[in-house]
Amino acid sequence: MPDSVKNNQLLKIINNRRSVRRFTEEPVRDEVFAAILEAGRMAPSTVNLQTWSFVVFDNDQWRAKFEHFIPFRGTRAVIILADTYRLRQILDVFPYSPLVEHTAAVINASLAAMNMNIAAEALGVSSIMLSDTGQTGLFNTDFLIEKLELPENVIPLMTMVFGYAKFDNLPVPPRLPIDQVVFSGTYKAPDTAVLSDWVDQMEEGFKAMRPGFSFARQVELYSNKMGEAEIALTKLVFYRGNKTSS
Amino acid sequence: MPDSVKNNQLLKIINNRRSVRRFTEEPVRDEVFAAILEAGRMAPSTVNLQTWSFVVFDNDQWRAKFEHFIPFRGTRAVIILADTYRLRQILDVFPYSPLVEHTAAVINASLAAMNMNIAAEALGVSSIMLSDTGQTGLFNTDFLIEKLELPENVIPLMTMVFGYAKFDNLPVPPRLPIDQVVFSGTYKAPDTAVLSDWVDQMEEGFKAMRPGFSFARQVELYSNKMGEAEIALTKLVFYRGNKTSS
Repeated sequence: MPDSVKNNQLLKIINNRRSVRRFTEEPVRDEVFAAILEAGRMAPSTVNLQTWSFVVFDNDQWRAKFEHFIPFRGTRAVIILADTYRLRQILDVFPYSPLVEHTAAVINASLAAMNMNIAAEALGVSSIMLSDTGQTGLFNTDFLIEKLELPENVIPLMTMVFGYAKFDNLPVPPRLPIDQVVFSGTYKAPDTAVLSDWVDQMEEGFKAMRPGFSFARQVELYSNKMGEAEIALTKLVFYRGNKTSS
Repeated sequence: MPDSVKNNQLLKIINNRRSVRRFTEEPVRDEVFAAILEAGRMAPSTVNLQTWSFVVFDNDQWRAKFEHFIPFRGTRAVIILADTYRLRQILDVFPYSPLVEHTAAVINASLAAMNMNIAAEALGVSSIMLSDTGQTGLFNTDFLIEKLELPENVIPLMTMVFGYAKFDNLPVPPRLPIDQVVFSGTYKAPDTAVLSDWVDQMEEGFKAMRPGFSFARQVELYSNKMGEAEIALTKLVFYRGNKTSS
């Protein structure tokens, strides 16, 4: 890699981003948090439709709502919503095409989340993206619909926790080699020996992070919760089965 | 906003990002393109599962595959795939929970796409995210499954076009005011007068961009294609109906 690329400061920030699980008590100031949220607002989206919303919390607000600390003791949290409810109040963009609607909304909300993540890094603020609010480990949509009073066509996707990282030089969770994820022209079948090696690295990483912790166990935990999450999500996407707010 | 935030160079780059539709002929060098792809590889993902793949093209490769130029005459293109096929070769993370699997894969692939987008900006390279390859305007999954020889559980999400922007100071497509997208604690119903004003601004923007162009017409075009896209996506997500590669 040439120096002009290697020494690019922004690229360094992007590549040094880590998911942080220990935060200091230093609060993220209002104007810094506002700049992070602004990056979400400025993200690109399908036909600029901005199918996202962000529900924001400081620690007091989070505790009042969820009766525990922000996960990992972050000092700010944002629940990212894939939101086509707002758009539907003014435009009939999506006739009955719930899966396309869901997919587009998820893409856009995720773009906004990543833009916020990098904006935070630019300001020295670390973060982690969690599937839920730290209680169940996987999309807990029914719970959040009630807690956040969400109307139909709004799907909670993740919680982003923000704060200042307690430790530097966190290890990099093992990435697949570039030749397993980048293909020229047509899809290339994966090399199962490489995948197997990656699983071993993941297992080692999990063990190093916390004794008794296991990647295999984490995957199993997720798998066990999938059925419930599938039912909840199906109800939301296809049946607009949210009667909580009515 | 305090100067320390306002003068942050990376934040400026993030907030000045525009979707670019006119590129110069200057090619994106291999090492610059590699750095962009590396940012995709380094993106965060659910349990670090990296459910994405990137199919890459220069103009010759694109023309050989699709028989036209890269849209907007970009010089590189990346088709972003939500990919759980690879993972399924080694781990049974998703028992039959296709909508959760799809949603997680779409989130992760979109995070990678945004990370690449910002990495490109950091290197002076502009981009645009397109729903398709420039031919139909909306997820054209069947076409891409055939062209890219995709196995089951791989869903093409978007094409990112990269290149050097021909023009500076592109207008900012109108964003919704922050109080319409950021809520404290609970969901807040949108202000339809504000939404209506936003639609008017979008319409003006479309007209300014190209005479005869219309936001309402663009929305209508999308809506008309939804049915077909819905069927194709449903087949892929729920019936793994991809027999092209077998």
